[in-house]
Amino acid sequence: MYRAPVEEIGHMLTHVAGLKKMLDEGLTGDLSPDLVEAILAEAGRFASEEIAPLARVGDEKGAQLKDGKVITPPGWPELYRKWRQGGWNALAAPEHWGGQGLPMMLAVAALEMWNSGSMAFAIGPTLTMGAIDALEKHASEDLKKAYMEKLVTGEWMGTMNLTEPQAGSDLGALKTRAERAADGTYRIFGQKIFITYGEQDFTDNIVHLVLARLPDAPAGTKGISLFLVPKFLMGDDGSLGPHNDVFCASIEHKLGIHGSPTCTMIYGDGKFGATPGAVGWLVGEENRGLACMFTMMNNARLAVGMQGVAVAEAAYQKALAYARERRQGRVPNTTGSEMSPIVEHPDIKRTLLTMKAMTQAARAIAYSCAHAIDMARLTGGEEVVHWQQRANLLTPLAKAFPTDVGVEVASLGLQVHGGMGYIEETGAAALLRDARIAPIYEGTNGIQAIDLVARKLPQGNGAHVRGFIAELRQDAETVRGANMPELGDTGEYLGAALDDLEEATEHLLRLLDEEQAEAALYGATPYLRLFALAAGATMVARGAVSAKSAAQARLSRYLAENHLAETAALKRTVVEGADSLLAAAGELEEG
Amino acid sequence: MYRAPVEEIGHMLTHVAGLKKMLDEGLTGDLSPDLVEAILAEAGRFASEEIAPLARVGDEKGAQLKDGKVITPPGWPELYRKWRQGGWNALAAPEHWGGQGLPMMLAVAALEMWNSGSMAFAIGPTLTMGAIDALEKHASEDLKKAYMEKLVTGEWMGTMNLTEPQAGSDLGALKTRAERAADGTYRIFGQKIFITYGEQDFTDNIVHLVLARLPDAPAGTKGISLFLVPKFLMGDDGSLGPHNDVFCASIEHKLGIHGSPTCTMIYGDGKFGATPGAVGWLVGEENRGLACMFTMMNNARLAVGMQGVAVAEAAYQKALAYARERRQGRVPNTTGSEMSPIVEHPDIKRTLLTMKAMTQAARAIAYSCAHAIDMARLTGGEEVVHWQQRANLLTPLAKAFPTDVGVEVASLGLQVHGGMGYIEETGAAALLRDARIAPIYEGTNGIQAIDLVARKLPQGNGAHVRGFIAELRQDAETVRGANMPELGDTGEYLGAALDDLEEATEHLLRLLDEEQAEAALYGATPYLRLFALAAGATMVARGAVSAKSAAQARLSRYLAENHLAETAALKRTVVEGADSLLAAAGELEEG
Repeated sequence: MYRAPVEEIGHMLTHVAGLKKMLDEGLTGDLSPDLVEAILAEAGRFASEEIAPLARVGDEKGAQLKDGKVITPPGWPELYRKWRQGGWNALAAPEHWGGQGLPMMLAVAALEMWNSGSMAFAIGPTLTMGAIDALEKHASEDLKKAYMEKLVTGEWMGTMNLTEPQAGSDLGALKTRAERAADGTYRIFGQKIFITYGEQDFTDNIVHLVLARLPDAPAGTKGISLFLVPKFLMGDDGSLGPHNDVFCASIEHKLGIHGSPTCTMIYGDGKFGATPGAVGWLVGEENRGLACMFTMMNNARLAVGMQGVAVAEAAYQKALAYARERRQGRVPNTTGSEMSPIVEHPDIKRTLLTMKAMTQAARAIAYSCAHAIDMARLTGGEEVVHWQQRANLLTPLAKAFPTDVGVEVASLGLQVHGGMGYIEETGAAALLRDARIAPIYEGTNGIQAIDLVARKLPQGNGAHVRGFIAELRQDAETVRGANMPELGDTGEYLGAALDDLEEATEHLLRLLDEEQAEAALYGATPYLRLFALAAGATMVARGAVSAKSAAQARLSRYLAENHLAETAALKRTVVEGADSLLAAAGELEEG
Repeated sequence: MYRAPVEEIGHMLTHVAGLKKMLDEGLTGDLSPDLVEAILAEAGRFASEEIAPLARVGDEKGAQLKDGKVITPPGWPELYRKWRQGGWNALAAPEHWGGQGLPMMLAVAALEMWNSGSMAFAIGPTLTMGAIDALEKHASEDLKKAYMEKLVTGEWMGTMNLTEPQAGSDLGALKTRAERAADGTYRIFGQKIFITYGEQDFTDNIVHLVLARLPDAPAGTKGISLFLVPKFLMGDDGSLGPHNDVFCASIEHKLGIHGSPTCTMIYGDGKFGATPGAVGWLVGEENRGLACMFTMMNNARLAVGMQGVAVAEAAYQKALAYARERRQGRVPNTTGSEMSPIVEHPDIKRTLLTMKAMTQAARAIAYSCAHAIDMARLTGGEEVVHWQQRANLLTPLAKAFPTDVGVEVASLGLQVHGGMGYIEETGAAALLRDARIAPIYEGTNGIQAIDLVARKLPQGNGAHVRGFIAELRQDAETVRGANMPELGDTGEYLGAALDDLEEATEHLLRLLDEEQAEAALYGATPYLRLFALAAGATMVARGAVSAKSAAQARLSRYLAENHLAETAALKRTVVEGADSLLAAAGELEEG
C-alpha cells in the first residue's frame, strides 16, 4: 500500500526546487518550514489513509452512466466529502474567496500524493482548481461573486470543455456555437467530448467552462470565446434553479482511470428548458477565450505532469515491496538453503534504481516548474518576466517528461512482479493503465515538444534558455567541487550532458533563426527528452549537495552514470537525424 | 484492420534471414520459392480474414470459467476448427506423424501473422507445437504412437505445466509430486498456475506436459521429471476413457490476452477417479525433465518473440491507417483551408518511422534465430555445432528484444491515436495490453539477459560471439561499399555500433573470465538491448543491399541515423555503470 514519501518530497521542495530560499526571503508571508511540514504530512496522510484504499474499487467498478446520471465508484462521494471538509480544495485558492493562498509548490506536492493515492480520484478536484484559476484571472466580479466561493470550498466542482470530435490538438477547428441573448448572457449549442467529471455525483452543481464560437467570430483560434455554463442555473437568492440545457450523453470505456467519468456533453439540445440553448456567461472578452483557457491549461499541464510523478512513485513503492517479499533463486555467497528475495538479484536492483532515479528526476523538474510559477506571482519588476519565462520554458518539460516516466516506471514495476504483474488483482497493471493517459491529455507529449522548440526556445531570442543552461552548468560545477565521495564522477557526467543540451539547443535555435521551423520540429521529441534528462539529473545532484545527503548522492550518481549517456544519443538524433527521417517518411503518406 | 505484410515478410526471410541460400543449397528438399510464397500468402489470408475479425470479441468477452468448464469467446471454437482443418497445426510438425515438416523459418513467419491477428488465439496452438516438439525428441515410441497424430492434426491440444506459486523463474523450487505406480505409470499431485489453455472448449482432449518431482529425487533442478498427463485417459481402442484426476480450479483476470484462458490446474485432488492421483507417463528419463522441457522452452521463447513482432506490426498498421485518416492542424506550405492528415506532421512521422524500423529490426533477429534452428537440424558435422551455438546465442535476443519492441511500439501506436487511443473501442489499447505479457512469460526478459551473458557469451570461450560480431562487421562493410545513395551514412553508423557491441562484449567476457559473474550481470539488460540494436540494424541494412531496395535502404538509414546512437549510451552503462549501481543499491534491501 502507498505511503506518502513526505520526507523525500520535503527534500525536493527545499533543496532542489527553491522553497527554502523563498521562505527565507519572506516571499510567502508567514509560511514557516514547520507549517510546510505539517501540511505535507497531513496531505500525505489523506492520500495514504483515505484515497489509496479506495483506488482498487474505483478501478474495478469504474464510473457508470445510468438513466442520464453518473454514478461514481462505491465510497467515492463520501471520500470527496471528506476531502473537501479537510479544506484541501482551498489549498492554493485565493484568500479573498476563502482559499489558503499557499504557494503552487505546496499545492503540487500535495497533488502528487493525492494522485499516488488514485489518479482517477485526484483529477476531479484538479479541474476545479483550474477553473478557479481561470475565473480569478479573467471573469467579471459578478461572476466571481456568484461562483468562486462554492468552487473554492469544493461545494461545486469545475470542468474544462475544449475537445470536440474534429477538434483535439487543433482547437481552432471547434464548432460549438454561442449566440448572444438579449440579457447579456449567451446560449451555447454543441457537443464536447472527453470531458473529465463532466457529470458526477460528488456535488449538487457543476460549473462548466466551455469554449465556443460566436456567429461573427473570425475563423480559427482567434474566434474562440470562453463561457461559464452551470449545470443548474441559480435563482436570485443563490439557490439552485432550473436544470440548464446541458447533459451527459455517454461516458467512455477507457484503458484506465476507470473511476473518473469521461463524458460526452451535449449543450443546447433542448433536453432541458423551454427553448433550446444552454445559458452561459462570457469569461473574459469575446474571441479571447483561448488566451483565458491557456492560463488554465498551463497549470493543468503541470498538474498532469504531477500525475506522472505520482504514478511512478506509487509503482516504485509497490515493486520495491514485492521485490523484498518475493523469493526466487539464490544469489551467490548466500548462506542457508532459502531462496533470496528478488531485490537481491542484480537485474532487479538495476530496475528498481532506474525507477527511483527517474521518478526523482521527473519530480525535480515538476517542482521547479511550480517554483517558477510561484516566483512569477510573488516577485516584482524584471524578476517577474524572468520567472514567467522560466515557467513557460519548464511547463512542456514538466508535462511531457514526468508523464513519459510515469508510463516507463509503471511498466518496469509491472515487470518486477513477473507473472503476478499481469494479473489485475495485484494492482501493478492498473498503475500502467492509469499512467498511460497522462502523455496524451492536456496536449499530447508531441505537442509539448513542439511547444518547447517552436515557442519556448525563442523566448528573448534564445536568451532565456541559454541563461537556464548556464545556471545548470553552475550547478554541475558545484557538484564537481562538492567533495562528496558518494557522487563519484557525477559532476563530469553532468558536464557532458549539458554540453549535449547546449549543442542541440544551439542547433535548433539556428534552424529557427533560418526560418526552418519544420526541420527543427523533426527533432522536437528527442530534444525534449534530452533537455529533461540533463536538467533533471543536474537538479537531483544539486539537491544531494545542498542537503549533504549521502543517500541522495548515491542515487544521483546512479542516475548520472547509468542514464545520462542517453543524452549523447539524443543529441545526435536531434542534430543528425532529420535528413534520414525526411527521406524515409515519403512512403508513410502513400497508400 | 490488419493486413498480413506478406511481401515484407518474404523480403525478410529471403534477403535477411538466409532462406534463399537454404533453398538454393537444397537443404529443404523440394521446397520452392513459389511454394514458400503460396504458404505465406495463405497463412496471411487466414490471419487477416479469419483470426483478426475475432480479436475484438476475444478481448471483450474473454475466456470464462463456468461450472468447471472454460468457455472461450464466441466464435473461437469454430475459428480453431477452421484453423486445424486448414492444416496449419501440422506446418512444422514431423512428416512421419502427418506433419508437413516445413522449416522453422516458415512456421515462425506464419506464427507472426496469426499473432498479429490475435495473440490470445495464436498462443494456444503454439503450445501444442511445443508439446509435439518435446514429445518427438524425448518420449517413448509407445507414447508417441498414442498421442502424436492427434496433436499434429490439432484434434487435441497440448499444454506446458511448469509454474507453481513458489516456483516461477526458479523452477528448482517446484513441489508437484510424482509417485511411481505398479504398472509403470505415475500418479501426479500438486498445483500448477498460469497454465495457458490448461482448459478449453476447442478440443475433446488435452495433453498436459507436467514437471514434477519423484519422492527420491535430488533437490533443485536436478530432481525434476517430465510427465504426460492427458485430461481424459484412453481406452485400449484409442477411444476416450475416464476423466483423469486433473481440473481447472480458476482462471486469471489479466491485463490482456483475455481470450486465452490462464488456468490454475489441480492434479491428484481426488476430484476424478476412484483413488486420488492424476495418471501420468514419464517423458524422457527420471530427473531429466528440465532438459526435456528446455527443448520446448527454447522454441517457445522464439515463439513469444514472434508475438512481440506480431503486435508491433499490427500496432504500426493501425497507427498508420489512423494517421492517414485523422486530420488536425495544417502543416506549412499546404494549399487550401483543409486540415492536414496527421501523418504529415513531423513528430508523427518520426513516431511512425520508429515503429516501423524497430519492428523490422525485431523481425530480422527473430527470423535469423529461426534460420539458425533450421540450419542446426538440416546441416551436418561441424556445421551443426556452429548453428546450434548460433541458435543458442540468438534465442535470448529473439525473445527479449522483440517483446520489448512490441510493448514500445504498441505504446507509440496508442499515442498516435491521441485521446482516441485511450478509448477501448479503438483497439489500440488492447494491443498494448496484449503485448505487455510477452516480456514476462517464457522467462522474463531479465532472465533472458542473464542467460545471454552468463551462458551464451561463454560458448567456446567467447569464440562464437566473436565470430558472430565478425560476420556483422562483414555485413557493415558490404553496406558501406554498396553504392546505394539511399543508405546515406548507414555503414559508418553500423560500424560504430558494432564497435560498441565489441567493446561491451569483451568487457563482459573479461569479467566472466575473472569469475566476476555477478558484476557482469549488472549490465545484462542494457547489454542485451545493445546487442539486439546493433545486430538488428545490421541485418536490416544487409537486407536492403541484398534486395537492392531503395525503400528498405531509406528505412535502414533512418534506423541507423536515429536509433543506433543509443548503442554508445548502452555500452557506457555496461562498462561504467556497475559501480554506481552497487553503491546505490544498498538501500533497496533495507526497510
